Amino acid sequence: MRVGIIGASGYVGGELLRLLLIHPQVEVTVATSRSLSGDFLHRVHPNLRGMTKLKFTNPKPQEIIDACDFLFTATPHGTSAKIVPQFLETGLKIVDTSADFRLHNPDDYEKWYNLTHPCHELLEKAVYGLPELHRKEIRKASFVACPGCMAISAILALAPVVKEGKVEKDKIVVDTKVGSSGSGAKPSLSTHHAERYGVVRPYKPAGHRHTAEIEQELSALAGDGIKISMSTHAVNMVRGILATCHAFLTSPWTIKDVWRCYRGFYGEEPFIRFVRDSKGVFRFPDPKTVVGSNYCDIGFEIDDHANRLVVMSAIDNLVKGAAGTAVQCMNLMLGLDEQTGLEQPGLHPV
Amino acid sequence: MRVGIIGASGYVGGELLRLLLIHPQVEVTVATSRSLSGDFLHRVHPNLRGMTKLKFTNPKPQEIIDACDFLFTATPHGTSAKIVPQFLETGLKIVDTSADFRLHNPDDYEKWYNLTHPCHELLEKAVYGLPELHRKEIRKASFVACPGCMAISAILALAPVVKEGKVEKDKIVVDTKVGSSGSGAKPSLSTHHAERYGVVRPYKPAGHRHTAEIEQELSALAGDGIKISMSTHAVNMVRGILATCHAFLTSPWTIKDVWRCYRGFYGEEPFIRFVRDSKGVFRFPDPKTVVGSNYCDIGFEIDDHANRLVVMSAIDNLVKGAAGTAVQCMNLMLGLDEQTGLEQPGLHPV
Amino acid sequence: MRVGIIGASGYVGGELLRLLLIHPQVEVTVATSRSLSGDFLHRVHPNLRGMTKLKFTNPKPQEIIDACDFLFTATPHGTSAKIVPQFLETGLKIVDTSADFRLHNPDDYEKWYNLTHPCHELLEKAVYGLPELHRKEIRKASFVACPGCMAISAILALAPVVKEGKVEKDKIVVDTKVGSSGSGAKPSLSTHHAERYGVVRPYKPAGHRHTAEIEQELSALAGDGIKISMSTHAVNMVRGILATCHAFLTSPWTIKDVWRCYRGFYGEEPFIRFVRDSKGVFRFPDPKTVVGSNYCDIGFEIDDHANRLVVMSAIDNLVKGAAGTAVQCMNLMLGLDEQTGLEQPGLHPV
Amino acid sequence: MRVGIIGASGYVGGELLRLLLIHPQVEVTVATSRSLSGDFLHRVHPNLRGMTKLKFTNPKPQEIIDACDFLFTATPHGTSAKIVPQFLETGLKIVDTSADFRLHNPDDYEKWYNLTHPCHELLEKAVYGLPELHRKEIRKASFVACPGCMAISAILALAPVVKEGKVEKDKIVVDTKVGSSGSGAKPSLSTHHAERYGVVRPYKPAGHRHTAEIEQELSALAGDGIKISMSTHAVNMVRGILATCHAFLTSPWTIKDVWRCYRGFYGEEPFIRFVRDSKGVFRFPDPKTVVGSNYCDIGFEIDDHANRLVVMSAIDNLVKGAAGTAVQCMNLMLGLDEQTGLEQPGLHPV
Repeated sequence: MRVGIIGASGYVGGELLRLLLIHPQVEVTVATSRSLSGDFLHRVHPNLRGMTKLKFTNPKPQEIIDACDFLFTATPHGTSAKIVPQFLETGLKIVDTSADFRLHNPDDYEKWYNLTHPCHELLEKAVYGLPELHRKEIRKASFVACPGCMAISAILALAPVVKEGKVEKDKIVVDTKVGSSGSGAKPSLSTHHAERYGVVRPYKPAGHRHTAEIEQELSALAGDGIKISMSTHAVNMVRGILATCHAFLTSPWTIKDVWRCYRGFYGEEPFIRFVRDSKGVFRFPDPKTVVGSNYCDIGFEIDDHANRLVVMSAIDNLVKGAAGTAVQCMNLMLGLDEQTGLEQPGLHPV
Repeated sequence: MRVGIIGASGYVGGELLRLLLIHPQVEVTVATSRSLSGDFLHRVHPNLRGMTKLKFTNPKPQEIIDACDFLFTATPHGTSAKIVPQFLETGLKIVDTSADFRLHNPDDYEKWYNLTHPCHELLEKAVYGLPELHRKEIRKASFVACPGCMAISAILALAPVVKEGKVEKDKIVVDTKVGSSGSGAKPSLSTHHAERYGVVRPYKPAGHRHTAEIEQELSALAGDGIKISMSTHAVNMVRGILATCHAFLTSPWTIKDVWRCYRGFYGEEPFIRFVRDSKGVFRFPDPKTVVGSNYCDIGFEIDDHANRLVVMSAIDNLVKGAAGTAVQCMNLMLGLDEQTGLEQPGLHPV
Repeated sequence: MRVGIIGASGYVGGELLRLLLIHPQVEVTVATSRSLSGDFLHRVHPNLRGMTKLKFTNPKPQEIIDACDFLFTATPHGTSAKIVPQFLETGLKIVDTSADFRLHNPDDYEKWYNLTHPCHELLEKAVYGLPELHRKEIRKASFVACPGCMAISAILALAPVVKEGKVEKDKIVVDTKVGSSGSGAKPSLSTHHAERYGVVRPYKPAGHRHTAEIEQELSALAGDGIKISMSTHAVNMVRGILATCHAFLTSPWTIKDVWRCYRGFYGEEPFIRFVRDSKGVFRFPDPKTVVGSNYCDIGFEIDDHANRLVVMSAIDNLVKGAAGTAVQCMNLMLGLDEQTGLEQPGLHPV
Repeated sequence: MRVGIIGASGYVGGELLRLLLIHPQVEVTVATSRSLSGDFLHRVHPNLRGMTKLKFTNPKPQEIIDACDFLFTATPHGTSAKIVPQFLETGLKIVDTSADFRLHNPDDYEKWYNLTHPCHELLEKAVYGLPELHRKEIRKASFVACPGCMAISAILALAPVVKEGKVEKDKIVVDTKVGSSGSGAKPSLSTHHAERYGVVRPYKPAGHRHTAEIEQELSALAGDGIKISMSTHAVNMVRGILATCHAFLTSPWTIKDVWRCYRGFYGEEPFIRFVRDSKGVFRFPDPKTVVGSNYCDIGFEIDDHANRLVVMSAIDNLVKGAAGTAVQCMNLMLGLDEQTGLEQPGLHPV
């Protein structure tokens, strides 16, 4: 199976390369970059030095179509919407990691992204690429929109309890902490090491765009409108997201109930782990312990004092939050074992 | 004015030393440590090398009484309650930085600290040492209980809006991120660099003891019971706290209203700064920008989508969160200019 | 092939587990820990949660012998010397990761470790486990002493030029920078996050014990006594070593000469990469780019001004510096493809 | 005394502002920035919020001359040489923090900076601003060139032993580790947090320009040509430099001799501290313990095995390495107490 990556010089592109170069059932044939065309991959992905002779190229669409059986588009928001249609027409299966096709309702693009979506018809066709919620559709899909990293962490944390209808629907706080790779590979003053190191910087206290995806998915589960109160913070690490979700219970619940609800919802999901230990250092989810892996760790606590449920989820934003989920979707779309190429544990300590 | 520090080898003790050694109107005459008695201060406070010939000692109470006019007790919780009374009896003015005298209601010690408080009568005498709320009482006090670091950040963030009665009283989420110096100077596996570096570790999703102080102070301001939903996270920095406070508005409010409320409440407070810029890297409070200073930076945002007010506050947990506030209280208790010895700006970048 | 790990709760033990649990040709049957016997591996190796049902045990020697075909001893220095002999006698093949069997000359233990070695005869039998130098002997060995992490980085950097005899033999400076995982898993004040974060701490300006191994191996290559001037520094990362080696040329040399020398020496070594680029961010070796991988990146520069050759090498101290090299040795000893289970690239960015 | 800072938006400019805004005997009247003219200082120096009403301006030279009695030029290399002469002509005293006037020999600019120096006559006039070596000249100077940060750390470490003539003159290795603030305030891919975090990046294994200054000053002390073998590394911190200097002894020396030599050379220098303890965490110099202070910590070790002297020095690159030394020079030039405004200890832990 020949696979191409459009936009391979960014961090999601680099992570797709890392996973796909050792994936036993695909071969990466195309890795595009306009600015780095002709350069070795290790120019910007130094970890891949010596892994491949592949170079960045800047091919014409037809060359991509000829060289690939499957396509990842890791292009910036706005670009994907322009380039995806031509490839889809040729029957290529595609996973897009941009935000361009995640929302089903075109009005949401007006509201959250302040733009008129150029191809409404594809919004209907695109499957929201979260296997834990849409495995069946993904298996049959030819076009999958990979969710946003913040959205994945929040949705996986909240899906079970929202579906069970146990929390107030309009007062769900999602307080998110994210590492610097989430800002992408383009330097700016706000990502300058001397300015970014050691911060706890609230970069979007309200109005984060991923709110739209989260509400779309959770409302569908709840069968009713869910309102998310999201605030996002940059913290001093490179990889990882912790989403701390605070929700208020509509009726009493015990920890045992929470366990039952979450175990029931996720069953044998291969990449969901529950973390709630009574001893040891890592008693709740922590992004540190999933670095490099495709796991989403979920933990919870009940605050009797305030009638509150706290659910925490930790992911590596570049793996389960992007490239890992994208590969998981590819595996499903190609009929492969879903875990293929994603079995590596994280690193610890790191 | 001769000043003593009981428990000078910990991080709060060290920070008191840093501030007091260059304070123009006091002289540190006693710095106690049982384990380091006879050693130079720089054995554990390497920044103070060359600043003083003072050594740690382990004096008897009478020696302390003879050598000091003012006392800081930076002793562990539980120890302060045992040693403070004997010093107070002699007329020494004291600021205690432990939790032993922060709560007025003895029952709260049973509930939150699981202990029977040994000296109820002192609970009534102790003034809660937050100058922004209790300046007048502190000026007249002979005994002040310095607030907890998490409490300071949360109370200063929420006091104005809680007093104005604009938010739902039982659904206030305080999501706190704190650096490793907040865990004290004693090593453990959870603070081992390889385990603690790069984390976003939810160490107390519910039930943090500072909740009690926060509710005590905010309820007094509200004239009604306030319930705080607090979750605390360890993040990858040494100094600093960011408290992100999420509250739900009981009636519409604009950013202009918030500005009016907060400016009105704090007036010309010397150590409160408002941070809400439309450009630049630091548009909201960030603990990085207060490292080494006594400032509490406060910022806010209104989330119309979810009818939510987000208030963020940033402090250096060892300065405004402990030693700086303690010195501020001392200045007030001694009739000095409140800002004496606390005028240094923070370091940036750091 | 059933594999056991004696001392599996430390960082080298954890890394062996990470590599071996997904190694396609072995099965981990025993992971011992006295203090954690009965506990899941993820109690201290949280990355391994969900990867295995295996628990720590504290078996008797005979139980280990019965359950394993191959043994890794990741025990503290001193302990390995006591326990290895009984296992070797039964024909078990062993890789020991302690320092106990790395030096051939018992006198060196007196000199550098200040101890009388308890089993001289095994010192002769143990092969120094650096495949790049001793591949043939390792293939035939039943007992391999895995080198020290600092030693690996220094030896691989210097071997080619020392063999070629181009530098002054008694003035080779090795200035090493290492992450906190190199201090092991046991907490202490010097590894306490608040004390260890942000340091560049010279912890052994002279007299580091790995000097002995480095001189042993390089002197053998040179056919003459080599003297190493080593200084080691703790820096603010968890994984990784950079060795900067400064040597003075005995006669003029060009960069082209250096390339020829190093390419000639290493040929097609699977885990040696040369890093010397004229553009990009990572123009020389950097431990950041090998995190999680078994690569040793080597780069060099000639300083005409001072007649100096600078050789830099970067490794992940837990992989190529310990567990990865140990597995590489195991593969050789078992007649497997040397790269099996070690093909994963590092993570970037991380 | 009215003081102006030309180029106040960079990190050295910001640090000058931090020190001068609380300096009791000067008033900052001008802080120039072309790009930020009209903006508050806290736009890029967030620590200074609330400290001053001063704004960045972009005044004409005459306006600067009218508003200031003393000038700091913190302009980029090349710019200082263009703007300094016009100010000097008016009798303004100046400390320049660029490299433009540090070298006395114009040929050195050709060799190390690859440029023809535009004003040779000023090279003779400029005093090299290191008070520990040139206090008397600085006191009488009207124009001082503040040394480079790497140069300060290396010169202060090596001056005593070089003057005593105890080490081989052409084999002195200076292995330097520096924080990210040393790269200045301008973002680039190499300083992008995700790329710069966690590195030990050899960014100049040979040919660093500060070599020229170091050799100039040490050769003058030695009365003979000194050759420096310098390699510089970027490490994961914001502030700080550790220089590890390796030199080979020409005849036997003991630690006692080293103590005598260094104590004799530095006498009562206010900002030199010796760090060589037998216990505790910080037994040798570490930049962590000088953050925010003007101290240069110096320590040493003798390596009998290799006949080597190791001298380590730690500074905060923005304080003793730039703005602090510049203010120290200003104090001397103005006849003030040299320590004025520089008495603050560093922060610990930080």
